[in-house]
Amino acid sequence: MPGQTPPASIPTPTAPPPDILRCAYMELVVTDLAASRNFYVDVLGLVVTEEDTEAVYLRSIEEFIHHNLVLRQGPVAAVAAFSYRVRSPQELDRAVAFYTELGCEVRRAPEGFTRGIGDSVRVVDPLGFPYEFFYDVEHVERLAWRYDLHTPGALVRLDHFNQVTPDVPRAVRFMEDLGFRVTEDIQDSEGTTYAAWLRRKPTVHDTAMTGGDGPRMHHVAFATHEKHNIIAICDKLGALRLSDRIERGPGRHGVSNAFYLYLRDPDGHRVEIYTQDYWTGDPDNPVVTWDVHDNQRRDWWGNPVVPSWYTEASPVLDLDGVPQPVVARTDTSEMAVTIGADGFSYTRPEDASRAQADDDVLPSWKQGEYKLGHQL
Amino acid sequence: MPGQTPPASIPTPTAPPPDILRCAYMELVVTDLAASRNFYVDVLGLVVTEEDTEAVYLRSIEEFIHHNLVLRQGPVAAVAAFSYRVRSPQELDRAVAFYTELGCEVRRAPEGFTRGIGDSVRVVDPLGFPYEFFYDVEHVERLAWRYDLHTPGALVRLDHFNQVTPDVPRAVRFMEDLGFRVTEDIQDSEGTTYAAWLRRKPTVHDTAMTGGDGPRMHHVAFATHEKHNIIAICDKLGALRLSDRIERGPGRHGVSNAFYLYLRDPDGHRVEIYTQDYWTGDPDNPVVTWDVHDNQRRDWWGNPVVPSWYTEASPVLDLDGVPQPVVARTDTSEMAVTIGADGFSYTRPEDASRAQADDDVLPSWKQGEYKLGHQL
Amino acid sequence: MPGQTPPASIPTPTAPPPDILRCAYMELVVTDLAASRNFYVDVLGLVVTEEDTEAVYLRSIEEFIHHNLVLRQGPVAAVAAFSYRVRSPQELDRAVAFYTELGCEVRRAPEGFTRGIGDSVRVVDPLGFPYEFFYDVEHVERLAWRYDLHTPGALVRLDHFNQVTPDVPRAVRFMEDLGFRVTEDIQDSEGTTYAAWLRRKPTVHDTAMTGGDGPRMHHVAFATHEKHNIIAICDKLGALRLSDRIERGPGRHGVSNAFYLYLRDPDGHRVEIYTQDYWTGDPDNPVVTWDVHDNQRRDWWGNPVVPSWYTEASPVLDLDGVPQPVVARTDTSEMAVTIGADGFSYTRPEDASRAQADDDVLPSWKQGEYKLGHQL
Amino acid sequence: MPGQTPPASIPTPTAPPPDILRCAYMELVVTDLAASRNFYVDVLGLVVTEEDTEAVYLRSIEEFIHHNLVLRQGPVAAVAAFSYRVRSPQELDRAVAFYTELGCEVRRAPEGFTRGIGDSVRVVDPLGFPYEFFYDVEHVERLAWRYDLHTPGALVRLDHFNQVTPDVPRAVRFMEDLGFRVTEDIQDSEGTTYAAWLRRKPTVHDTAMTGGDGPRMHHVAFATHEKHNIIAICDKLGALRLSDRIERGPGRHGVSNAFYLYLRDPDGHRVEIYTQDYWTGDPDNPVVTWDVHDNQRRDWWGNPVVPSWYTEASPVLDLDGVPQPVVARTDTSEMAVTIGADGFSYTRPEDASRAQADDDVLPSWKQGEYKLGHQL
Repeated sequence: MPGQTPPASIPTPTAPPPDILRCAYMELVVTDLAASRNFYVDVLGLVVTEEDTEAVYLRSIEEFIHHNLVLRQGPVAAVAAFSYRVRSPQELDRAVAFYTELGCEVRRAPEGFTRGIGDSVRVVDPLGFPYEFFYDVEHVERLAWRYDLHTPGALVRLDHFNQVTPDVPRAVRFMEDLGFRVTEDIQDSEGTTYAAWLRRKPTVHDTAMTGGDGPRMHHVAFATHEKHNIIAICDKLGALRLSDRIERGPGRHGVSNAFYLYLRDPDGHRVEIYTQDYWTGDPDNPVVTWDVHDNQRRDWWGNPVVPSWYTEASPVLDLDGVPQPVVARTDTSEMAVTIGADGFSYTRPEDASRAQADDDVLPSWKQGEYKLGHQL
Repeated sequence: MPGQTPPASIPTPTAPPPDILRCAYMELVVTDLAASRNFYVDVLGLVVTEEDTEAVYLRSIEEFIHHNLVLRQGPVAAVAAFSYRVRSPQELDRAVAFYTELGCEVRRAPEGFTRGIGDSVRVVDPLGFPYEFFYDVEHVERLAWRYDLHTPGALVRLDHFNQVTPDVPRAVRFMEDLGFRVTEDIQDSEGTTYAAWLRRKPTVHDTAMTGGDGPRMHHVAFATHEKHNIIAICDKLGALRLSDRIERGPGRHGVSNAFYLYLRDPDGHRVEIYTQDYWTGDPDNPVVTWDVHDNQRRDWWGNPVVPSWYTEASPVLDLDGVPQPVVARTDTSEMAVTIGADGFSYTRPEDASRAQADDDVLPSWKQGEYKLGHQL
Repeated sequence: MPGQTPPASIPTPTAPPPDILRCAYMELVVTDLAASRNFYVDVLGLVVTEEDTEAVYLRSIEEFIHHNLVLRQGPVAAVAAFSYRVRSPQELDRAVAFYTELGCEVRRAPEGFTRGIGDSVRVVDPLGFPYEFFYDVEHVERLAWRYDLHTPGALVRLDHFNQVTPDVPRAVRFMEDLGFRVTEDIQDSEGTTYAAWLRRKPTVHDTAMTGGDGPRMHHVAFATHEKHNIIAICDKLGALRLSDRIERGPGRHGVSNAFYLYLRDPDGHRVEIYTQDYWTGDPDNPVVTWDVHDNQRRDWWGNPVVPSWYTEASPVLDLDGVPQPVVARTDTSEMAVTIGADGFSYTRPEDASRAQADDDVLPSWKQGEYKLGHQL
Repeated sequence: MPGQTPPASIPTPTAPPPDILRCAYMELVVTDLAASRNFYVDVLGLVVTEEDTEAVYLRSIEEFIHHNLVLRQGPVAAVAAFSYRVRSPQELDRAVAFYTELGCEVRRAPEGFTRGIGDSVRVVDPLGFPYEFFYDVEHVERLAWRYDLHTPGALVRLDHFNQVTPDVPRAVRFMEDLGFRVTEDIQDSEGTTYAAWLRRKPTVHDTAMTGGDGPRMHHVAFATHEKHNIIAICDKLGALRLSDRIERGPGRHGVSNAFYLYLRDPDGHRVEIYTQDYWTGDPDNPVVTWDVHDNQRRDWWGNPVVPSWYTEASPVLDLDGVPQPVVARTDTSEMAVTIGADGFSYTRPEDASRAQADDDVLPSWKQGEYKLGHQL
């Protein structure tokens, strides 16, 4: 229901939030299981822990829990769950109480919602996202030392999720109530927040809130050890004549300082490959706020962001598997303020003075792609 | 004189060509010597062999001859010489005879045209480019083992030149007469050749001929050891708020299979950073011909080429320092056939069938940047 | 007092331990401050936050607290403090109570024991090591994005400490009382434990307990982003004709799966450079136990450990700066059981069967170095 | 016949030598073809061009000729041919004339001695080595762009051979007559030459002459693109519990400046993995002479050379497949002068002054392994 007014601020529950360890897995609904399996297993090299005709359970090389990704055959490409591991079985009771107090739909499955996972709680959170919490999980072999199985582009860990939501400050406040901390964000001088990165584990994020029509899933990210591993994935996609899967990058993020690549899977779900952000585990870890007009915020090298990256995202499902309605963002959009008609001026005087082009505009190769009137 | 008809085929001289070893250095005229020195020395880390108020003589880390690049203060940004080393002093006589027979302007300087170089021959070749040949040169310390001086983005060798010329087949025939061999080229099914790569040393090229209005200099390329060195250059440019210097990449070339990055220096001269092409030294080395409609030919990952990369290039000077007139290309342009209104179809049926978008078009993130009508 | 009987098991305090975030810095006493500064700053590239004639305060590239290493001029090379950051100022009271109950010497400095650090507690712990705890600290610029300052071997984080102690199980039990968890250890089939790795932050360790005459400091470790960074450090040491600083490696650890290098500083203090271990933050993280007879446990490539690495370590000081007496290990030593007269047999039948040499012995190039009677 | 006096200097033929392009392939006799295939194909990832029950024909990733290595089942592990490609078919006549004049046994096979190769000449050269020359060869797919087939440790090129011969200066003079050039060597102040590196292609070598009892084959070397590829090979060997195959390294060579690793195949044949030496193609390329007492000459990091590396090598066969007799080296041996009783002093005063140990000796971790009297 685009255009709908987003609800007011979410109240802070009196019940304490569950103690979340880390983002643990995403359950993706895919429309062609064989095609998706080919992409995630044969191309990206995720390891099959288990599979049947309905679903494939995949993990990264250094994981010891049953899976980091579930591909489940379904009628519409969407996200069924953003799943987090909590610190103990007792945290599930806290999750139930926390979300129940918020009036959310809450379901508990003592035998788990997917294979390999035991007692679990699933909710539709106040932002409209299907979240899962679990502690009990089947252990499998950690393949860290199995270099005979590593590929040039080996994915070693699930790193984070990224969610699209219309009102970023509202989402951030809720996530802080859930125990997350902000590590970085993008704002402008008028006070609009365009995106925020939030963490439980001491990396830049377990999830991020990206401003846009939502709830939708922006991407799920896996980590490699080194930068050349990410380049190897690109090279392999080229060799397989699958370069169209590369949406953006590789590049260096300003936010997070990580080296990155964005891919689109056969259903259009976006997958990031990511490496080398930094330690954020101190309580007073400095929050980094980026100016939305800093053209190095999303790509440290100033390479332009492709519009699809801003506009496209995956639907998310409710607990019955029905796609959630999408609410339009009413704050200004990052794409509009950065690559629209007025988007090219450097707002920071000290940067503008360094621009090689006349006055304070980007050189043609940095701006031309997206600016109306600068086309061929 | 744009629009001028290119002259007919260049006759093969009866005189044998000089035996060329390798591309050795480029003499660049720059309009702000201090700014250029800052870029090549402080940012890129080339090593100053010698300098004065008029010129800076630079070399790469593994070089043992006096320089690979001369920056010379002048009134207009241009190329004064594409300089090649020949196998022996005697080859200079052959160079004089070869170009004299072709009716070219030929000058010989027994003391050299630049510091550090002895007996040299300079010519304006039949394609309009200022070429230099020399054998005698001052040796300097090869810094290969001086890891205390290496930077994260260390440039270890001069790799190649790239020249813009209107009629690529004509240029290729002439370069073959000069003893070069083609290693790769880009053609279409109508027989148009868009670019060709030519080598003396057993890499993919010492120079390339890029179709376009010429004679102009497209770029000069330095090699690094590894891919992360190139990424380090981008990262440093970001840190210095000089990301505008990055014009294209980093990426993987289809042609040459090398990992690459294109920068623009303070005068707009284009510099490529390049690593890991392949051995081409066998006489029967297989020539690789790329279809101009293969969107992985210039970037193996299918990332679009920015228009400035096709259209902008540096003037070249005659032997008196006067910019050479530019003749317009009359064959179809690579940019027009690949990113114009009809540029997005895959010509190879087997590729089209793999495209995820409907029918045989590129997905939005691969095409949208440059196609009219696909803008925001 | 070598030979002294180690005291009995350390009782578990009723007071809860302080909530430790991470290893934060080491205070090293050095006998030639200029020489040490040269090594850590000019060679290794640590960043000087502050310095005076008595001390240099250094941090790694991604650190935002005042320092990760203090070099302090003193009469004898030793360790003055293993310093950990705690989660809040209140944790210092818990540290005081915890160690006081254990009968340890405890001192508190509201203004800190070193520059840049506020309220701190220092103790001599029951194992004889000088430990420090603090929360309050001066923030400094995190240089993660300052790629203009990065070197080829950039050290990005303090990773861990390593302590030598005679009775590893006793030390482990105490560290578990302090809130640490074991991630890996080395044992034999008779039940002897040779070493154990313990963590607070979710990496393989914040500190390790290495069996040997102690208390002594085995090493302090800094992390790089990638493996080539570690190689660059070796290359630079070679260029500076300081290759003697390289004691062991580079190599791949079995334990931790990290890529490593051990250096010796001008006083002989051992410094490890380390990259790419794995996530250990889950409460049920699988503990990896290595057989002491597995010749890949310390070097995954089976390269022999140099004897000095087993036998040499730095003294540690009490709170008055007096070197702590050293108690001899009475359990069998790892060096003796692995590179002594009986040290070469593979104990694992499945490994022995793969050995290429006759029967179950290592080939000459893997064993010959250290085995008596196998010399030239 | 160890102890035999080496013959006098080899006369320079009046016939010109064949114009050699590059080392092209080695034919190895192996005693267990399945075991060798497993090592070279399943472990190292060389590509099978063709195979039968008697032989396997392998090539590296970027090769376009039929093979770089032949594994042939035979009764004794040995080398059947060091094979070089020449510039044209006509060069074979020159090879016949050149070696015939020298009184060598010369055989010509118009259909080739192995599959995939046409007209070829094989000789036993004056140094006792079986050399082959060919031009005609079957072309196969160059897999440079087939990143879907690349492994983490991908071998991209055959780089060089290394031969053991008693009298290095005699061998060098002969190789210079054959058209090779010296790029680096190891000598002492008394004028003894311990080893020399010789090239046709413009890298540090196509082959090297290592002083020792010979003729024997020291190693055959394949190149990777980057250093992490070599580390990946070590990691994989560890994972397969084949770490015993690692004889020496990885490390950085002083000579050649390349990053290296030495492996021993199932028959004990030594294989080097090698990356990043430098351009040597200029006629006046500076020759680098290393002092045999420079402990960074063979490993830039000063890590000791394992004795087996000096003493063990593979037999070579005559044209009938009979192992060549071995003549003992009479000059002093590099191992003896560097790791014997007197081997530890730095000969260069400026290095000795930097040694941290007393006076001019290596620290224990650099010397202890091999020096009698320094054992545990």
